[in-house]
Amino acid sequence: MRTYLDCFPCILKQALEYAKLSGADIRTQKKIIDKVARSLPKMSLTASPPETGRNMRKYVMKVTGNSDPYRGIKIKSNSIALRFYRVFKKHIKRSNDKLLTAIQLAIAGNIIDYGAKNTLNIENEMGKILRQEYKTIKHEDCRIFDYAGFKRNLKKTKMLLYIADNAGETVFDRVLIEEIKRIDKDKRVIYAVKEKATINDALMEDALASGVDKTAEIISCGADTSGTVLKHCNENFIKLYRNADMVISKGQGNFEALSDSRRSVFFLLKAKCRVIADHISSLGIKCKEGDVVMYYQKYRGF
Amino acid sequence: MRTYLDCFPCILKQALEYAKLSGADIRTQKKIIDKVARSLPKMSLTASPPETGRNMRKYVMKVTGNSDPYRGIKIKSNSIALRFYRVFKKHIKRSNDKLLTAIQLAIAGNIIDYGAKNTLNIENEMGKILRQEYKTIKHEDCRIFDYAGFKRNLKKTKMLLYIADNAGETVFDRVLIEEIKRIDKDKRVIYAVKEKATINDALMEDALASGVDKTAEIISCGADTSGTVLKHCNENFIKLYRNADMVISKGQGNFEALSDSRRSVFFLLKAKCRVIADHISSLGIKCKEGDVVMYYQKYRGF
Repeated sequence: MRTYLDCFPCILKQALEYAKLSGADIRTQKKIIDKVARSLPKMSLTASPPETGRNMRKYVMKVTGNSDPYRGIKIKSNSIALRFYRVFKKHIKRSNDKLLTAIQLAIAGNIIDYGAKNTLNIENEMGKILRQEYKTIKHEDCRIFDYAGFKRNLKKTKMLLYIADNAGETVFDRVLIEEIKRIDKDKRVIYAVKEKATINDALMEDALASGVDKTAEIISCGADTSGTVLKHCNENFIKLYRNADMVISKGQGNFEALSDSRRSVFFLLKAKCRVIADHISSLGIKCKEGDVVMYYQKYRGF
Repeated sequence: MRTYLDCFPCILKQALEYAKLSGADIRTQKKIIDKVARSLPKMSLTASPPETGRNMRKYVMKVTGNSDPYRGIKIKSNSIALRFYRVFKKHIKRSNDKLLTAIQLAIAGNIIDYGAKNTLNIENEMGKILRQEYKTIKHEDCRIFDYAGFKRNLKKTKMLLYIADNAGETVFDRVLIEEIKRIDKDKRVIYAVKEKATINDALMEDALASGVDKTAEIISCGADTSGTVLKHCNENFIKLYRNADMVISKGQGNFEALSDSRRSVFFLLKAKCRVIADHISSLGIKCKEGDVVMYYQKYRGF
């Protein structure tokens, strides 16, 4: 997905949030927002938003000297989500369709994104997830949620590549992977996180803190972009991305980065802004801001 | 209220919305957003947001040749609100405290702001207003809603200046003014609108379309700013603003423009963004985004 003009105000907003979270004083905040504003006209509209945002974040990090301003938020997200781990497991155990419930939880986990909504009250949202207030997934509509296709693909998959999104959400991912492994313990599941800090994207330390290592191999994709931009990924990841029998990609950033890539991918995400909702709609899938989407990108030419 | 750094992304967003509503093609939209982005570093942080936004809007109007891109929206807002006029009147008639109900409606009417939320479904919101889902006005808390003070002031007022905010909201204002006049038909009420189009702010034509002329004198404040910036107002308005026994100011834009002015004002508004909510909180009034506020600015030095 390319960068839209509507992304410009958002890039500016993120720069300011980054600066504030880094503890920058008002003078430094002004310096940062001025520089980013001046750089907007030069930004590429053919690159994906995670790519466009990369230079902005690198600049803010350089000025503030803080390479991971969301660290505290990520640690908190992991620990709050972990508190709900047993509740989620019980929830799945009681379900008639355990895999479906685990998928629903994994998508709902995507709401934990301090990049898009920094005032989100995680505990409240957890309550909503458990009360199943996020039932927007229409599994009758195969264009959005092709559950039958998902199950069919999963069954014949030997090696599954699962691309992580945010810290905290990692606990939800663990729960889904555990359910996948419960059905078939011989499946190889590789869980890919970011190499370096970018917003609240999960790093190796977050995956470990969430206990993902108990059920999957964890690797770094090599990128420092808030979305797995392939040209910034390492060779190992690229190879796995090409060769995996099935790829699950979590979150908006990864969708933005990978939706033009030439392979089939199951995208699980919440459409967090109007730009992405409109973009998904332009693919023929009616989507509005806030919708929870499982989109199967089918690629036949690889 | 001064312009905050957090207003910068919003100015950029408004510029793009303005350009789109003006029917600008993608090239022109890009030209506009680039120019506005480049001008942000030069913007004054001591001026109020309506003042800061003025040049941006003038520039967009010049480039697109469209001096009133929100015209269609304003006409629609007036006509939809008018459809509810009789329902509002009945609602007030049934109320035990008719003035309070009329005030509550007038504040609720402030939700109709295409400048802040352009996807708002007016009819849905009207339903919410009638079901009194906007009961956030705490009239026990005198710092926020000094109803006793309001009534006391109103009683001794001979000339009331009522400063309008948006088109559509004008119908709600009419209902409140009619209630004020029902209590005391000899009160002089002057209703001030903007001189030239700015976002969806009410102009003379909107006040007339809403039938405000049936109950009040309508004047133009002389300004073309989305908020009554005194230095852009005409002499007649300034005189009235100084001499009125009581001033009611509607909406966020007018609060931003007048909250530092040296006279007592009853501000009725919905805090539509975090910046204004934080600003109001800094005045010692706990306020969060989305709160409905009636704030009495007391000035003793005039």
